[in-house]
Amino acid sequence: MTTVIKGGTIVTADLTYKADVKIDAGKIIEIGPNLAGDTVLDASGCYVMPGGIDPHVHLEMPFMGTYSADDFDSGTRAAIAGGTTMVVDFCLPEPGQSLLDALKRWDNKASRAHCDYSFHMAITWWGEQVFDEMKAVVRNHGINSFKHFMAYKGSLMVNDEEMFASFSRCSELGALPLVHAENGDIVAALQQKLMDEGLDGPEAHAYSRPAEVEGEATNRAIIIADMAKVPLYVVHTSCEQAHEAIRRARQAGMRVYGEPLIQHLTLDESEYSNKDWDHSARRVMSPPFRDKRHQDSLWAGLSAGSLQVVATDHCAFTTAQKRTGIGDFRKIPNGTGGLEDRLPMLWTHGVATGRITMNEFVAVTSTNIAKILNIYPQKGAILVGADADLVVFDPQASKVISANGQQSALDYNIFEGQPVSGLPRYTLSRGKIVYADGKIRSNEGDGQFVSRAPFPAT
Amino acid sequence: MTTVIKGGTIVTADLTYKADVKIDAGKIIEIGPNLAGDTVLDASGCYVMPGGIDPHVHLEMPFMGTYSADDFDSGTRAAIAGGTTMVVDFCLPEPGQSLLDALKRWDNKASRAHCDYSFHMAITWWGEQVFDEMKAVVRNHGINSFKHFMAYKGSLMVNDEEMFASFSRCSELGALPLVHAENGDIVAALQQKLMDEGLDGPEAHAYSRPAEVEGEATNRAIIIADMAKVPLYVVHTSCEQAHEAIRRARQAGMRVYGEPLIQHLTLDESEYSNKDWDHSARRVMSPPFRDKRHQDSLWAGLSAGSLQVVATDHCAFTTAQKRTGIGDFRKIPNGTGGLEDRLPMLWTHGVATGRITMNEFVAVTSTNIAKILNIYPQKGAILVGADADLVVFDPQASKVISANGQQSALDYNIFEGQPVSGLPRYTLSRGKIVYADGKIRSNEGDGQFVSRAPFPAT
Amino acid sequence: MTTVIKGGTIVTADLTYKADVKIDAGKIIEIGPNLAGDTVLDASGCYVMPGGIDPHVHLEMPFMGTYSADDFDSGTRAAIAGGTTMVVDFCLPEPGQSLLDALKRWDNKASRAHCDYSFHMAITWWGEQVFDEMKAVVRNHGINSFKHFMAYKGSLMVNDEEMFASFSRCSELGALPLVHAENGDIVAALQQKLMDEGLDGPEAHAYSRPAEVEGEATNRAIIIADMAKVPLYVVHTSCEQAHEAIRRARQAGMRVYGEPLIQHLTLDESEYSNKDWDHSARRVMSPPFRDKRHQDSLWAGLSAGSLQVVATDHCAFTTAQKRTGIGDFRKIPNGTGGLEDRLPMLWTHGVATGRITMNEFVAVTSTNIAKILNIYPQKGAILVGADADLVVFDPQASKVISANGQQSALDYNIFEGQPVSGLPRYTLSRGKIVYADGKIRSNEGDGQFVSRAPFPAT
Amino acid sequence: MTTVIKGGTIVTADLTYKADVKIDAGKIIEIGPNLAGDTVLDASGCYVMPGGIDPHVHLEMPFMGTYSADDFDSGTRAAIAGGTTMVVDFCLPEPGQSLLDALKRWDNKASRAHCDYSFHMAITWWGEQVFDEMKAVVRNHGINSFKHFMAYKGSLMVNDEEMFASFSRCSELGALPLVHAENGDIVAALQQKLMDEGLDGPEAHAYSRPAEVEGEATNRAIIIADMAKVPLYVVHTSCEQAHEAIRRARQAGMRVYGEPLIQHLTLDESEYSNKDWDHSARRVMSPPFRDKRHQDSLWAGLSAGSLQVVATDHCAFTTAQKRTGIGDFRKIPNGTGGLEDRLPMLWTHGVATGRITMNEFVAVTSTNIAKILNIYPQKGAILVGADADLVVFDPQASKVISANGQQSALDYNIFEGQPVSGLPRYTLSRGKIVYADGKIRSNEGDGQFVSRAPFPAT
Ligand SMILES: [Zn+2]
Ligand SMILES: [Zn+2]
Ligand SMILES: [Zn+2]
Ligand SMILES: [Zn+2]
Ligand SMILES: [Zn+2]
Ligand SMILES: [Zn+2]
Ligand SMILES: [Zn+2]
Ligand SMILES: [Zn+2]
Repeated sequence: MTTVIKGGTIVTADLTYKADVKIDAGKIIEIGPNLAGDTVLDASGCYVMPGGIDPHVHLEMPFMGTYSADDFDSGTRAAIAGGTTMVVDFCLPEPGQSLLDALKRWDNKASRAHCDYSFHMAITWWGEQVFDEMKAVVRNHGINSFKHFMAYKGSLMVNDEEMFASFSRCSELGALPLVHAENGDIVAALQQKLMDEGLDGPEAHAYSRPAEVEGEATNRAIIIADMAKVPLYVVHTSCEQAHEAIRRARQAGMRVYGEPLIQHLTLDESEYSNKDWDHSARRVMSPPFRDKRHQDSLWAGLSAGSLQVVATDHCAFTTAQKRTGIGDFRKIPNGTGGLEDRLPMLWTHGVATGRITMNEFVAVTSTNIAKILNIYPQKGAILVGADADLVVFDPQASKVISANGQQSALDYNIFEGQPVSGLPRYTLSRGKIVYADGKIRSNEGDGQFVSRAPFPAT
Repeated sequence: MTTVIKGGTIVTADLTYKADVKIDAGKIIEIGPNLAGDTVLDASGCYVMPGGIDPHVHLEMPFMGTYSADDFDSGTRAAIAGGTTMVVDFCLPEPGQSLLDALKRWDNKASRAHCDYSFHMAITWWGEQVFDEMKAVVRNHGINSFKHFMAYKGSLMVNDEEMFASFSRCSELGALPLVHAENGDIVAALQQKLMDEGLDGPEAHAYSRPAEVEGEATNRAIIIADMAKVPLYVVHTSCEQAHEAIRRARQAGMRVYGEPLIQHLTLDESEYSNKDWDHSARRVMSPPFRDKRHQDSLWAGLSAGSLQVVATDHCAFTTAQKRTGIGDFRKIPNGTGGLEDRLPMLWTHGVATGRITMNEFVAVTSTNIAKILNIYPQKGAILVGADADLVVFDPQASKVISANGQQSALDYNIFEGQPVSGLPRYTLSRGKIVYADGKIRSNEGDGQFVSRAPFPAT
Repeated sequence: MTTVIKGGTIVTADLTYKADVKIDAGKIIEIGPNLAGDTVLDASGCYVMPGGIDPHVHLEMPFMGTYSADDFDSGTRAAIAGGTTMVVDFCLPEPGQSLLDALKRWDNKASRAHCDYSFHMAITWWGEQVFDEMKAVVRNHGINSFKHFMAYKGSLMVNDEEMFASFSRCSELGALPLVHAENGDIVAALQQKLMDEGLDGPEAHAYSRPAEVEGEATNRAIIIADMAKVPLYVVHTSCEQAHEAIRRARQAGMRVYGEPLIQHLTLDESEYSNKDWDHSARRVMSPPFRDKRHQDSLWAGLSAGSLQVVATDHCAFTTAQKRTGIGDFRKIPNGTGGLEDRLPMLWTHGVATGRITMNEFVAVTSTNIAKILNIYPQKGAILVGADADLVVFDPQASKVISANGQQSALDYNIFEGQPVSGLPRYTLSRGKIVYADGKIRSNEGDGQFVSRAPFPAT
Repeated sequence: MTTVIKGGTIVTADLTYKADVKIDAGKIIEIGPNLAGDTVLDASGCYVMPGGIDPHVHLEMPFMGTYSADDFDSGTRAAIAGGTTMVVDFCLPEPGQSLLDALKRWDNKASRAHCDYSFHMAITWWGEQVFDEMKAVVRNHGINSFKHFMAYKGSLMVNDEEMFASFSRCSELGALPLVHAENGDIVAALQQKLMDEGLDGPEAHAYSRPAEVEGEATNRAIIIADMAKVPLYVVHTSCEQAHEAIRRARQAGMRVYGEPLIQHLTLDESEYSNKDWDHSARRVMSPPFRDKRHQDSLWAGLSAGSLQVVATDHCAFTTAQKRTGIGDFRKIPNGTGGLEDRLPMLWTHGVATGRITMNEFVAVTSTNIAKILNIYPQKGAILVGADADLVVFDPQASKVISANGQQSALDYNIFEGQPVSGLPRYTLSRGKIVYADGKIRSNEGDGQFVSRAPFPAT
């Protein structure tokens, strides 16, 4: 049973050309003119692109006895409805917990996924057991990336000594360290100061996490990676200060990657001055939104190549969950949605405005991260033999973003009311049509784990 | 009659994988395992890469009543012996001469080429005729790039007003402006000053063209391109100052490209303090070689992506020709060889040292410039349908560079005595084996002109 | 007949202390507690500071057959009413005119000055005569600074070759080159383009002179000065791009100075979108006002020390004169007022806001330029033996700026309606009270020429 | 009993002029021509400058049960023999020790000083007692600066939380935080790694403290100061990375100061490759010496004003003491001499080479730090009423530096064999001639504590 995508223009990270794509058994088997197959998808007027890969999501994330609202079911439905065909979640061991035990729990949760997925392993504590299990995680479990939190003092945060030890271990194992870069000590102190001053609302969340504090941590993580002789991936790069540190490192010959989020590219700090507590609290995430100067910096980084990936940090908390933080902004759960909106928002604000090209669009939503995570060209490519994770993208289709009818379990959408042009007509996951005509056609559990081999160790 | 390259590892700008390559009628027709064909080339132990593209050569360049020593015959033989399968030369109209008349002369000379070629058109004077003929050059002659000299006062140099006019015209036509970036006024004044002080040797050539003067002109060209709303390609970027200007522009969202030469990456200014006049004079080119700090900057730019292309500016003058400048360094013809050595030198000093990856090697020697010049994936790619311009590269093969036995007509080699690892085993041009077992197998005139379509005009 | 300033706090570029100042015969003769004299000025609650020096004014400047509205009479009255006790004007030879002849004309005009003054000599053309006369200007006429216009194509503009020649001459003579840094070729081309598009209003003036074009010229002038081995003073630095070039040069060990104007520090480009043609046209000056990012950059430069001087470029054209440019913004005379407002505006927006200290205020309004122009400590200092050019500044005094009652001959004030805190109570010129209780007490012709010795030649 | 310095040229941070200086009761009482007094010092051919202030010394510093070799006797003798008339030492409380108790111990040691002195208080631990005592230190003990060590893990090091708390306390009290900026976690890890690899010699000291690690900590300290709204003083800035962080901060409007040491300005890392263990170990200090690129950066910073002070970090350990570290470089006591050589070395390599002016020489050796420490113009000035701490400096006098005959108790000198031009003819401390004709004339205990008032709290 073959499927053919007909009449479209293929757009990859480095090519734009007219051709049909033929698919069988989950793989692309032919690319060329005039292909025939059992099922034919009309791509006329559309771009056929590698499905999006979102390397930064938190689905069904444990939080204060409950979970973030989007699990692997609704979360991956949101993904495919938005043209994204693979997500990478973060496995978060509890303090003292075995990495492998935590992984089992994540494997379990992910069994509901509608599209392919993989995991980053978080290093949330340090010890000989962690050191040892990192090897098993890399060698036996198909995970080649380890996340480190420089913030969230008292829970996830690791210190410089631990980071250096873990980064050095990554270097030995051929794994890539990731960092959430904010100086947790300073954030905690600023939070306390703001609370002491009676500033307990969502706007204080932003005050407590200034760009300087993100820039500092980014710079520190880079130096630690340099000393440990390992590349570095900086998640949710939101400001010029962090971007500057990344640029400086790259110009010193280091291999450092930066990941702006679609939220930081398109929303700004004025969101937090909204008088409606719910409005502001729904937009509480870390780092917080920044001003326009930072947005300009991030966009320039995408076109210049000093920033490589656009992600979402999708971590959905409902308004009810957000309200845990009434009276104390520190208790507002950090995170928000974006999986369904990443591609349309980036197309609208990036490609349609001329800031980035279509090929760069594919690069930053799919191909670059596939290369960085060592799964290219299985993912992120339109090549014979590659997984048929594809999106047929209609640049003329438009809508106004709304929580109404979205796949996410959230009761709101932070992009509510924003008009977008450029929407998926079809999304295919391993060759199966999982989204068509505005409808989800996939099943829970269709998604598979994507194993990622280590890099040649340095 | 098909040819198959068997047993090698394909290396492209973004992939490394084992596969055979099958060729027919000058094109790649199949890529995969276990291919069979009429002719089989053994690529075991080798990397199969897109043939090199050198976007910056001057063959049989007119000079003071004579010509540079390598013409399209010897020059393209040097190219294919070094794994390069396409060269781009510069058509240089004389002051007042029709661009189209000049082009005829270049077409004529190029008829001897052993591999494919194309032309940049130089804007050496300005007027309504030039303005008008630029359109014909782009629309009818397959040339989408125009070169501008900011140095060589009194001959090739154009001023800011002319550059702005020409860049604006490029913008309308969908063409790319190129610049030789040195402040010609200052160079001329410094030259005179040095001569007045009795400094007439090759070392004074270097003194007369400091890095600051190149950085200044690079920055100026960038601003002029920005004002004219057109991208810019800076040839022979040799120093941190020029590189810094390029980085700064890219971080402001501009599309600016920089081209270091293999010479500047591997040789330094100490060459000019050699007591042997011939030794120093043979290395006279513009810009001159720089110190190690500049080399570090250029290498970092290649890995960071802020510089995109490695070229040669191959413009061969024999020792006899160089001696025209005895007693007056201003009369030493500017230029030297490199076509045969570019790939081995870059592999040895870049890939083998870990500064750049194999994929980056392909990117900077072939793929990036193919994209920039709008001929990708006809050139610069290993894809079905692409021109079979390929090099089978043996990373274990080694030699010591010497003028002895080189293809170039030169009586010397500026890399003389340098050991290199990584040499072409076979070079194929449009599917024909043009170099094998250390021997040229091509014929004069085999090369074809590569027409380059304009970009969508801005 | 002695004068004593009693009860004030002396503020200099590096000291703040309570003391009285005693003056005789135009000089400070004693500084200390409890001084007595024939005339006593009450400085209680006030800061006693060196009188302001404005190194950039154009009084009675020739313009299209007429003159700028403020001459040495009204202009220097505005100066002393604003606490400025010395101005430096620009002697502008016509093309081909002898520098010495031009100087006679300027000497003549300046005979009406109410406060001390000096001249910069402009290099508006080049030739052996200019080369020769520069020596006379420096040796016999007390002028150690030469101005170069990189803009105003077709009239004042000089090219790179001429600049290098003149800068080299400055180096020999121990003189300081100054530049108006904008790329005149590009400005002219952009002007024509805007006119062709039907944009003929004052806002087009701003469009035709973007920050990039100023940054480019600043960078170019710096490199030319570096090659000529001479320091450089950049007048009216208005943007981050120019400031960045200056910083970069200073970090390479060069001696480069930057001079923001009070206008660029406090007004922004939105002034040009005013619907009232007169409003916008009155604010037409070159460079034009910039956006807030540039203002932030300039303020940081003043506190960091990378920018050294705040001036006005006072060049007053009445509304009637401005209207010459109705229908063609290129004909709007460039320039506006500021002499009376510089100190109060800088105090209000700089000192009162905490951006700069009081000592930095004195440094950037007086002391730094006195040192740069080689007249320190005759001017710019409160030391025994220094000229008694002083301002008794009342930080509590406030007003709303208005054209009403100003000394300037202008019929408007670009700061109209702006509240300022910090006003002169007394201004003294060479010991004479020239301004007191809101009234001018000086006489035309009281001002003297201040001769400036050359620097040790490099 | 008055003293007159006759016939010299006074050089201050902003003036150069011929005048005599008259002194009585420890103060300058008159400056002018033809002064007479009871004692006359011949300054003909000499520059009369404010005595040097070295804000960074460790005299009789406790170390592993013993003390650094130069105490307040020999250390201040070395100072005055080298033209330095004031030193600032660091009071180092032991963990848990009262700041005030520690201060008593330092008061005691300092009673032997030959010249004036003051203290910085180190924050070596944190708690409510420290928080409280900081106020007493500032209000009652004349100390307005607090030192923080980001390195020396396990002993002096404080973490980010403690730094932020202490910096915030400084902000409240009007005190200035100082930092030793190296990432102590990373240094400790690198040290262990090097030892594990069998690298136990002095060269490994340098390997364990790369420039990146200093740059990181400098950047971090700056951000913490910014968040705490307090200026920052970075001691022993030794590299471009740290300098870059300082520049960046200053260009964001922050008040950050950097202090290169004379050692880093003039010696480089090649010292550590000396085969003689003693030679290398004597030069072990933190940060270690760097390569020439860093030296260029530091010199440019002094002329550009982005670095403000040249100090020594004088902390003398004899060869015997250094040998504690045979077999384990971590046990080599960190520190070396310099007090006697700072001015001659800086003059020779800075003023005589044209890198800095004489006035800048005075600024960076004396005046700037006097202002930063809030003791100007009592110290650092030649003004009537200022302390008569003066050096009569003979620019023609020369010597070859040698341990032979030096005042320091050290058995070696790291500048051994270096020729210098520019030596003190006389040194005066509070008006007393303490050094003349190559001989010390002071007495132990002549020096007095210099009390430093807090800044207006922010
Ligand atoms: Zn995060
Ligand atoms: Zn996250
Ligand atoms: Zn060239
Ligand atoms: Zn060329
Ligand atoms: Zn001007
Ligand atoms: Zn002007
Ligand atoms: Zn230290
Ligand atoms: Zn120290």
